[in-house]
Amino acid sequence: MTLSRKPLKGMRQLYPGERRVEDYIVSGLTRAGRAYGFEEYEGPVLEPLELFLAKSGSELAREQSYNFTDKGGRELILRPELTPSLARMIAAGGELIYPVRWMSVPLCFRYERPQRGRVREFLQFNLDILGAPSPEAELEVILVLNRLMRGFGAVPGQFEIRYSSRKLASAVLARCGLKAESLEAAFAVIDKRDKLPSEKWESWVREIVGDSAYSEAVIRFSRCRSLDAPWLVQLMAGDESLEELREFSRMLDTAGVEAAVFDPGVVRGLDYYTGIVFEVMDTGSENRRALCGGGRYDDLVGLFGGRGVSGVGFGLGILTLKLFLETYDLLPAILSNAPPVELFIAALSQEQRAFVLNLAEKLRNDGLSVETGLGGKNLRSQFTLADKRCIEFIAVVGPREIEEGRVNLKRSGREDLQVQMVDLAEAVRAE
Amino acid sequence: MTLSRKPLKGMRQLYPGERRVEDYIVSGLTRAGRAYGFEEYEGPVLEPLELFLAKSGSELAREQSYNFTDKGGRELILRPELTPSLARMIAAGGELIYPVRWMSVPLCFRYERPQRGRVREFLQFNLDILGAPSPEAELEVILVLNRLMRGFGAVPGQFEIRYSSRKLASAVLARCGLKAESLEAAFAVIDKRDKLPSEKWESWVREIVGDSAYSEAVIRFSRCRSLDAPWLVQLMAGDESLEELREFSRMLDTAGVEAAVFDPGVVRGLDYYTGIVFEVMDTGSENRRALCGGGRYDDLVGLFGGRGVSGVGFGLGILTLKLFLETYDLLPAILSNAPPVELFIAALSQEQRAFVLNLAEKLRNDGLSVETGLGGKNLRSQFTLADKRCIEFIAVVGPREIEEGRVNLKRSGREDLQVQMVDLAEAVRAE
Repeated sequence: MTLSRKPLKGMRQLYPGERRVEDYIVSGLTRAGRAYGFEEYEGPVLEPLELFLAKSGSELAREQSYNFTDKGGRELILRPELTPSLARMIAAGGELIYPVRWMSVPLCFRYERPQRGRVREFLQFNLDILGAPSPEAELEVILVLNRLMRGFGAVPGQFEIRYSSRKLASAVLARCGLKAESLEAAFAVIDKRDKLPSEKWESWVREIVGDSAYSEAVIRFSRCRSLDAPWLVQLMAGDESLEELREFSRMLDTAGVEAAVFDPGVVRGLDYYTGIVFEVMDTGSENRRALCGGGRYDDLVGLFGGRGVSGVGFGLGILTLKLFLETYDLLPAILSNAPPVELFIAALSQEQRAFVLNLAEKLRNDGLSVETGLGGKNLRSQFTLADKRCIEFIAVVGPREIEEGRVNLKRSGREDLQVQMVDLAEAVRAE
Repeated sequence: MTLSRKPLKGMRQLYPGERRVEDYIVSGLTRAGRAYGFEEYEGPVLEPLELFLAKSGSELAREQSYNFTDKGGRELILRPELTPSLARMIAAGGELIYPVRWMSVPLCFRYERPQRGRVREFLQFNLDILGAPSPEAELEVILVLNRLMRGFGAVPGQFEIRYSSRKLASAVLARCGLKAESLEAAFAVIDKRDKLPSEKWESWVREIVGDSAYSEAVIRFSRCRSLDAPWLVQLMAGDESLEELREFSRMLDTAGVEAAVFDPGVVRGLDYYTGIVFEVMDTGSENRRALCGGGRYDDLVGLFGGRGVSGVGFGLGILTLKLFLETYDLLPAILSNAPPVELFIAALSQEQRAFVLNLAEKLRNDGLSVETGLGGKNLRSQFTLADKRCIEFIAVVGPREIEEGRVNLKRSGREDLQVQMVDLAEAVRAE
């Protein structure tokens, strides 16, 4: 029987060049988090199904996830997201010092049809501040987002950090007369604002929201782009939610987050958001999905019998971010074809192999990465190998070099350099 | 309903302090690999069951693993090891430059009863050289092992790198008269040499191997610790396998791998090993399991219809290594309680918050990690927080500091320092 040479569709299999790209992205994300004191944690990939039925809802847990019963009769799930595990860790973590700043790069699974930007096994980046009820926590999380996007070389105009407030949206729609029981339906249509052509969306709003005054209010609010719009200020007179969001907007201005814009179209699907919500959008036309979504949630740990802990956080898809960086040509070209080592040492003949091995070990002790040709290859084939690997420096060791204690250092595109062996690490590093 | 506050037994859940320990270990491993030009790759966690039935054997794949049928009717497995996926990637990877030096840190799953050093969801370190038939490949892989152990501060005497050769063992036992069909059974009892009391093991050998001449040969070979033993040299006269291993032994000596010792008790369970095999053993009494096992295998990609690719590699359990490092007190104490940032900036009152936020952003732009107190806490509670987090430096910003452009830098255990704000990053870094 011959086995398939392909992994299952939508699974994460990365050759070294692809792995370097992912690593570049993940390093950029965690570096941004570390600048603010976020610490990494890990949750299990394999979790009890009931945790996700309770926290993520039945559709995500049962239909859109990998779940199964193990040999011991336990109902298990390959986690589709990290937040429920985070909630449990916070509930169980007795000695935590608040505010907790945690981040993680979880591998998650969804049982969905693979397509561009959507796979079945994927890395995500999660970052949360817990136990900080002040909107300064939202500000800090958005500062991290801004820093990481800028760190990759993205500039405002390529991306927007869109924010709104579910509290404000609820209050506006309530003042417009929408009944409480229609709120979720209204949120659902607002969420679809950019996914349908304008007129189609409007007629859909009218169909779902019903009463024409209510649906016009939903449409008007959804399209509003200023927290200073006179109709909005007038409508919300005496309500604190508008003033809170305006204050938050001023904080973003003061902090110089150019990419941040108010956009009531931001709703975020997950039910647990209760306050400010935000997302990072590619403003170009190629990638229509949000790179990232997040917001304020309350009572994260209630299901575990704990006291309410308020938090704010986001999840960011590594693959979606990668597509964004590719679109704007922000991935360093070197990544896909980087040399694996700094120096290649070639032996003139097999007689110098032991010497070469020991020289290489000494240089590695000095922190250099070194490859040597294995198994008695001639000089030409060693050169060919070093060349294929794009290694910049080659040192050739023959009997005379051993006697004189120095080598000929070949440098790609430049003339050779005579270097004492003891100075070799320094010479390579100096270039 | 109140949900459990514990993850499933044997799953990998790490709070930041535990995560830092794991990260320290993983970084040490990959750093050792990078010194030799090993590049990281990734395979899927979720794989077709048939891949493991073919490569790892039915018991591991069916009984000791998590496997299930997905919604699309596919028989899946949570990988118990990485090698079958590696084999597929090599078979499919058209443009690979040989010798391929690859490493990975896969998350693997086994359905086994959790106990000390054995869990159900675990990280492993895998490192392989492919397409290099020379024993210099085995040497290089053992040099990596030696470097990573020494890099953690382990010294010979705490660990041994035990090696043998399945080729030699087969030849010895054949010359002793053991029939080919009894070889696997003999290997299985040799493998158990250190797991039973000496006499018990001997009587077990006699029972399994049968004929007393054969069983004495198995016992004698299993206990032999020198490749120069006269009886061995005499027995194997004219056979190349002893000379090959003696040559390999000399290479290890020349390279100065003090921890390496010949030990015919090393067999390694996996069927695919065909030549030199090795393992890293804790020589103390607390941890009796091998930290690592590896060897030479041939025909890695045959099942995928490819040409034979010979390889040598090993797998190392991160948790077993962690237990080893704990036993010999080789984990830096700072890991479990490291401060998340270099500097805490406290605002005298809420009026300085905007200034503090912007100062912190500037310092982060300079590469410093900085925490600020969120949400209008008073000075004392900001100090308490910085203290709990073990942050070494605190800068306090009030109206006078803003006016004068300098701050009082508090340093734990030493006197305060007056520093110009523009020099703050440098001052913290200089300490």
